[in-house]
Amino acid sequence: MSRISYVNGQYCDHYKSSVHIEDRGFQFADGVYEVFGIIDGKIVDFKGHIDRLYNSLREIQLNSPIHRSAYFFHIKNLIAKNQTKNGLIYLQITRGVAERDFKFPKNIKPSLVIIAKNFPSNQYENNFNKGIKIKTTKDLRWKRVDIKTINLLAPVLAKQYAVDNNCQEAWLVDDDGFITEGSSSTAWILKRDTLYTTPLSNSILNGITRQSLIKGLKRNKLKLVEKKFNIKEIKSSNEAYITSATQYVMPVVRVDNIKIGNGRVGKYAEIFKKVYMEAVKLS
Amino acid sequence: MSRISYVNGQYCDHYKSSVHIEDRGFQFADGVYEVFGIIDGKIVDFKGHIDRLYNSLREIQLNSPIHRSAYFFHIKNLIAKNQTKNGLIYLQITRGVAERDFKFPKNIKPSLVIIAKNFPSNQYENNFNKGIKIKTTKDLRWKRVDIKTINLLAPVLAKQYAVDNNCQEAWLVDDDGFITEGSSSTAWILKRDTLYTTPLSNSILNGITRQSLIKGLKRNKLKLVEKKFNIKEIKSSNEAYITSATQYVMPVVRVDNIKIGNGRVGKYAEIFKKVYMEAVKLS
Repeated sequence: MSRISYVNGQYCDHYKSSVHIEDRGFQFADGVYEVFGIIDGKIVDFKGHIDRLYNSLREIQLNSPIHRSAYFFHIKNLIAKNQTKNGLIYLQITRGVAERDFKFPKNIKPSLVIIAKNFPSNQYENNFNKGIKIKTTKDLRWKRVDIKTINLLAPVLAKQYAVDNNCQEAWLVDDDGFITEGSSSTAWILKRDTLYTTPLSNSILNGITRQSLIKGLKRNKLKLVEKKFNIKEIKSSNEAYITSATQYVMPVVRVDNIKIGNGRVGKYAEIFKKVYMEAVKLS
Repeated sequence: MSRISYVNGQYCDHYKSSVHIEDRGFQFADGVYEVFGIIDGKIVDFKGHIDRLYNSLREIQLNSPIHRSAYFFHIKNLIAKNQTKNGLIYLQITRGVAERDFKFPKNIKPSLVIIAKNFPSNQYENNFNKGIKIKTTKDLRWKRVDIKTINLLAPVLAKQYAVDNNCQEAWLVDDDGFITEGSSSTAWILKRDTLYTTPLSNSILNGITRQSLIKGLKRNKLKLVEKKFNIKEIKSSNEAYITSATQYVMPVVRVDNIKIGNGRVGKYAEIFKKVYMEAVKLS
């Protein structure tokens, strides 16, 4: 079976799928994206991701190239064509193809690319059981990271810095020493029985996984405080986690090589994973 | 004659030239670029641009996909194939094509795209004689704009904001009220007989046109001060300019709809243009 992607109205052989060299996504990072988790062939929190996609489009003054209902249709088609059981859907919209010029071109159609990716079986469980290691680094990103744009070089460099330090994720530190978020995830710490995460602002992305976990916490009357935390507070925390559309709730066992708790996956990790999985909507 | 571009080792019909949908330039803005001015078929300040390109590559930990001397060869070929007299060469290098993952992929070759663009005759002179209008707006960019990367959505939005306000360029204002630079140019003001421009730091690009103009100013014993300026200082300036690889020295006649000097192109503009044109190296 060949891998199939969706590019501007057509289903194509993934390995031959291309965009023009003057697509504004390629020249200006003039575009936005979403990543949808796929569990048992179903889309995780479709509505949340599509709502945020439309919000991102509005923030960069771009219209959706297709009707809202067509996103569900194309994603479902790609899941079927690629036999995706557990994996992700990556969806990107750019301002389209035009002679290079910073200002918006007139009368062009935005580009839409959708890609399915299958995960090896048990990938999530295996990572969950080991937990991940975090490296902190300076947050160099632009001032509107609440918009989910493809201007991702700063997070790419942060992630690579983490990998170079034998870690799986970077936590980004603002000028005042507080963690904003991960390079591609939301950051959480647990102190006694209270979970802490950074409050929403222009400095973090409004994570869909974050939203669903918070919904689950409330439903189960678990304690949450939306408050910034610094490296000192991380060191004294009992457990820590990241959340993202493809890593769901993932326990953190070390930050800057310092053990969190006893350096193994903590007992609350399983609880929060369960609470999250019960809170998501699959469609 | 069809328009020809260079893409990863091949000269192609520009309108059919493409890159893969998983090129990291398209998904992560994981790349750098240069724009070379072309005057009478010759490259303006080739060495300065190539030195900066190699600096940008080093800063994002990317190796050049071709030998340094090959850039000159391919640019000259494109100038010939496209009969470029006055125009520009756009050159972009990205980390290459790989399954989407924030961390650097291993063992892939960077992508290289080179595009020639011809200008209508007298475009520069016509714009110079009218001068341009500037709109100021908040600088939202990331903290390493000294690297010439394709993470350009912030400048794109700033430029469009200027256009929406009937201006040709945006000047970006930092948190302390000082101008950093234009969305795609360097900013300058003249007070009496002294030219002011923002000093080099991580907050501005080290403009090649800026370098050549400064060289020309020194050679002609004209006064320059590298010092930040704010909107109040702009309003009391006698003349103002932008410089860039394709606009050379371009006079500014209004900022936020306030006249600079008498609101017409000032007498020093012609001097600085001449000084610049004598300072550049054509090859």
